[in-house]
Amino acid sequence: MTSAPAAPIETDALVIGAGPVGLFQAFQLGLLGLSVQVVDVLPQAGGQCIALYPDKPIYDIPGVPVCTGRELTERLLQQVAPLRPGLHFGVAVQSLQLLPDGRFAVGTTAGPLFHARSVFVAAGVGAFVPRRLPVEGLQAHEPHQVVHHPDDLTPFTGQRIIVVGGDAAALQRAATLAEQPGTPDVTLLHRRDQFTADAVLLARITALRADGRLRICIGQITAAHATAGRLDNVTVLDAQGGESMRALDVLVVCQGLSPRLGPIADWGLALERKLLPVQPATFETSVPGVHAVGDITTYPGKLKLIVCGFHEATLAAHAAHTRLYPQLRGPLLYTTSSAVLQRRLGLTD
Amino acid sequence: MTSAPAAPIETDALVIGAGPVGLFQAFQLGLLGLSVQVVDVLPQAGGQCIALYPDKPIYDIPGVPVCTGRELTERLLQQVAPLRPGLHFGVAVQSLQLLPDGRFAVGTTAGPLFHARSVFVAAGVGAFVPRRLPVEGLQAHEPHQVVHHPDDLTPFTGQRIIVVGGDAAALQRAATLAEQPGTPDVTLLHRRDQFTADAVLLARITALRADGRLRICIGQITAAHATAGRLDNVTVLDAQGGESMRALDVLVVCQGLSPRLGPIADWGLALERKLLPVQPATFETSVPGVHAVGDITTYPGKLKLIVCGFHEATLAAHAAHTRLYPQLRGPLLYTTSSAVLQRRLGLTD
Repeated sequence: MTSAPAAPIETDALVIGAGPVGLFQAFQLGLLGLSVQVVDVLPQAGGQCIALYPDKPIYDIPGVPVCTGRELTERLLQQVAPLRPGLHFGVAVQSLQLLPDGRFAVGTTAGPLFHARSVFVAAGVGAFVPRRLPVEGLQAHEPHQVVHHPDDLTPFTGQRIIVVGGDAAALQRAATLAEQPGTPDVTLLHRRDQFTADAVLLARITALRADGRLRICIGQITAAHATAGRLDNVTVLDAQGGESMRALDVLVVCQGLSPRLGPIADWGLALERKLLPVQPATFETSVPGVHAVGDITTYPGKLKLIVCGFHEATLAAHAAHTRLYPQLRGPLLYTTSSAVLQRRLGLTD
Repeated sequence: MTSAPAAPIETDALVIGAGPVGLFQAFQLGLLGLSVQVVDVLPQAGGQCIALYPDKPIYDIPGVPVCTGRELTERLLQQVAPLRPGLHFGVAVQSLQLLPDGRFAVGTTAGPLFHARSVFVAAGVGAFVPRRLPVEGLQAHEPHQVVHHPDDLTPFTGQRIIVVGGDAAALQRAATLAEQPGTPDVTLLHRRDQFTADAVLLARITALRADGRLRICIGQITAAHATAGRLDNVTVLDAQGGESMRALDVLVVCQGLSPRLGPIADWGLALERKLLPVQPATFETSVPGVHAVGDITTYPGKLKLIVCGFHEATLAAHAAHTRLYPQLRGPLLYTTSSAVLQRRLGLTD
């Protein structure tokens, strides 16, 4: 992580997204001798693999009969490490501007400004943001009274809390809050009487409910009510169509993560149904110098598979290298035989 | 290995070449539920990786920071194993014929006839065959008096032998022949006074030469001479331009392996400089139903990298599946989440 410097960071290549494809994009760029910076809105590398299925096995990475999303990410981080890309986590890209000298100025929120000679959008299906409840007036109470997937629950001790959600993320938080000392006032609210979690966590919820430490309510929030700017009640519609009011201090929303393309949609790149059309020879978008790889792209035959993203990143890196350094164009080098590549990989001095 | 059956082997897909890309081609086809047969002219899987650099490290397979060609092959064999493709080694494809029902009859030398609904040429730069000496009249003496890279040297005991070559394959054979009991008559002939092998083997050669058990001759064979149909002399041109005659019974040629496209060039597929042009959406050649992937292909942006072959095999498999079973077309399934794919991979019953 990098705090915003006064001067922009100059780089040959800026990779947006540190999922598997973004990491391999950085590897291929670095192998070609280009300087690389990588930004990701998430606090760590791995993208969807880590955000959605860190511990689920993947079986179709070529040469890796089985690995979890976490393991794949670790392997790719290890592979790119010798090439020393700049890694910036928790940084969302915001603006893209073509500078008069042909470089791109890429602005970020809570991160540095980049001046990049080429840009690689490896943003997957977009930045993963917590799914919000579609209830008018709730957003005004973020982030103090309405919180999404909070990691730290200590600020909510002793307050009247409603946790919304039906999966492990919701149940885990509801249980932890209900287990706090004293007389907790915790409600787990879910739209269906069906909860998804492992047996231990489900048993914990059942016990807390039996002890009167946790209420379970089946229904949906349909309205938010505030007094003097403070959220104090919500209307809950139950399965039978009945409405009731529930008093609360804090609403903990655990409705999963949802991808959003975000500001990239406003960069003037051609879009087709929220995807970036690319040339399959260069993986360039409609803007020369701006490439796109992985799940965010579309081209004839495109499959949203990691293995395809690896290829896309490879061709994109070579196309960018040829565009930026036409004078260095030469025969394709192989890591098995090229002393130049092996030196870049830190294998020789 | 399979001995030639009376009836053709029926298959959805025939993969020609069991290098990394051919193996992953079989994996992707099998994952889609297609039946797969794989043939390779080499006696084992791995293609160039095994034939050319079995023990050299590769650093650019995504998610595999380092592995040798041999290790990559083993990993891919392990990955494809649950899908049980038919594997036929030491089998060279010979003929391709379109049958009236749209299938392809693919004939082989020393192997079965296949009736395949789709064909995947993953033949790399062709079949690796020993490089021959460009000397007129030598070929007529194969395989008794002129042998290439022989594994078994026992038939040559007590004969006058010239071993041609300068690398470990040649030196190893020259040393083994010179170490035979009795008074061996062995000459190591190489065009330059420069030999490539490990220190132990080089020392062994030096000692055999000092003991008078091995002659070393720098020069090139320019003519072959036979008496009554039997090769008995060769003319050797030395570095100074002088010519001499050398008597021999056996010529052991170890000049490396060289790829040859072979009969595939005569199948009526469009060719561009010995490569097969393909559509990058389907990796289909000019003949519908015949796909090509890996180093044998050409298309805009093509790079001869294993990672690209993996993508090509993936798209080719999906295109073939769509062509053969349009009624089964559905959303893309993932190995992390699809019970169907997991069953095919033998992970569940």
